[in-house]
Amino acid sequence: MPLDKDRPCVTSVPLNKDRPCVTSAANPGIRRVRALQTKGRTRREEQAFVTEGLRLYLDAPAGALEQVYVSKTFLDTAQQAFADRAAVYGRLTRRLEETGCTVVSDDVFAGMSDTETPQGVLCVARMPVYGEKDLLPGDGAAPLLLLLEDIQDPGNLGTIFRTAEAAGVTGIVMTRGTVDLFNPKTVRATMGSVFRMPFLQTEDLPALAGRLRSSGISVFAAHLAGSTDYDAADYTKGAAFLIGNEGNGLSEKAAAAADTLLRIPMRGQIESLNAAMAAGILVYEAYRQRRFSG
Amino acid sequence: MPLDKDRPCVTSVPLNKDRPCVTSAANPGIRRVRALQTKGRTRREEQAFVTEGLRLYLDAPAGALEQVYVSKTFLDTAQQAFADRAAVYGRLTRRLEETGCTVVSDDVFAGMSDTETPQGVLCVARMPVYGEKDLLPGDGAAPLLLLLEDIQDPGNLGTIFRTAEAAGVTGIVMTRGTVDLFNPKTVRATMGSVFRMPFLQTEDLPALAGRLRSSGISVFAAHLAGSTDYDAADYTKGAAFLIGNEGNGLSEKAAAAADTLLRIPMRGQIESLNAAMAAGILVYEAYRQRRFSG
Repeated sequence: MPLDKDRPCVTSVPLNKDRPCVTSAANPGIRRVRALQTKGRTRREEQAFVTEGLRLYLDAPAGALEQVYVSKTFLDTAQQAFADRAAVYGRLTRRLEETGCTVVSDDVFAGMSDTETPQGVLCVARMPVYGEKDLLPGDGAAPLLLLLEDIQDPGNLGTIFRTAEAAGVTGIVMTRGTVDLFNPKTVRATMGSVFRMPFLQTEDLPALAGRLRSSGISVFAAHLAGSTDYDAADYTKGAAFLIGNEGNGLSEKAAAAADTLLRIPMRGQIESLNAAMAAGILVYEAYRQRRFSG
Repeated sequence: MPLDKDRPCVTSVPLNKDRPCVTSAANPGIRRVRALQTKGRTRREEQAFVTEGLRLYLDAPAGALEQVYVSKTFLDTAQQAFADRAAVYGRLTRRLEETGCTVVSDDVFAGMSDTETPQGVLCVARMPVYGEKDLLPGDGAAPLLLLLEDIQDPGNLGTIFRTAEAAGVTGIVMTRGTVDLFNPKTVRATMGSVFRMPFLQTEDLPALAGRLRSSGISVFAAHLAGSTDYDAADYTKGAAFLIGNEGNGLSEKAAAAADTLLRIPMRGQIESLNAAMAAGILVYEAYRQRRFSG
């Protein structure tokens, strides 16, 4: 479908088929987006969340997208905005054909968006659902897991997902006390990993760590009391890293579930690293060892 | 000075000596704090900034602190709040003797604070000032520098400072387009490194990179076009890492000023790492090499 401003976009909300542009924030679809943006409870009940921006629209599995909203200005100016990015424009037009979209006025779009300068594309997506087996690689390669205890900062959680995908992590486990993966800030920070990284929530992280150990996966914990330097342990076999909460570090129970307490050396007067940074340094060390081993 | 709620704290604002607790937000000192919290221009003109929280109060060089504000509740409850942390309580009382403080009502304090749940301690501090020589270690050790181009996210900049100190970075250079190091969110994220890590601003990052190269420091750039794996280069001699802006990466001019373009390998569909994460992975690889090279 060419992005021609004189041809209204196919809309996926039937009630709009005679009105190519939604101009009322009272529209039920618009109100649902706002509830999904702001209320974790609505997200959990509906098992749906909102993604913002072109990248997440293009990267999402098409089957995960329930609704697609574009602003009037985005649609009207897309052809010239992407004039020098033909490949992206091509992906955009193909995707619009695939998913359809609802056009909304810029005002209404601004009210749906969680960002100060919205890009003009926003989707309602279904939450992916995984089981424990999905955290292990299908090809028999060595698992590489992150076990997160009560991470609180949305940006940290999103950055952990993004970095984990880049380092070849095969799955992420989060305690129930971890910040909601599907809040808008976290989703943005994942840069699309939210659709690709298998994850689970658990009520009992130490028990899950115990099951991993029974199945031959070594469990390492980044810990201030650690005595093994993080770059002196072997992560080329199945490995899992326990990462604690930003303010309090790992709980004693979680730390006790680890085979090895790791120390990340620190100079100066720094007492601990940011939780996402610690996770990133550990998974990149694992990835480094795995590349060199083979 | 014992933290006794019946003995008013020595105040450093003379106009308050007969009034132990400031209850008006119109007080000039309070208004100055608010301007320093919210206006980069005020910070630059006065060469001062605000630090929040106990850690930054205790960690700051005493000479850097111009004013110290504590909330009435913080002072009234400190003795019991720190009952099981005698060492911290001891540092706090000694520091209060050293610096004096102004007691303000909880309402007024909440209005001065940039955080939702203020700890009850807040300082006006003088900005540290450094020259190029301060970025090099005094003991003849190999310099390790970060050169930041237009980093925009306050949390990223603060995390870069914190991680850099932990990895033994000797100094950080920022372009003028970099987010203000002294905005409240960045200061918090540095975890005190803002007082300890030498830094400079520059109008011309490529020229500065050229001067570093002339003085024998190798300049590396994290770059999507890099062909040298980041863990295949040698950082045991003087080294500097160029880190680009979150959205656009390094400018062509800055990248051209590097000796070597580095590649951080990435799996999955991730196109780039978060800027702070990339900086952290690079400086921790440098620190790892330097620890092993003895």
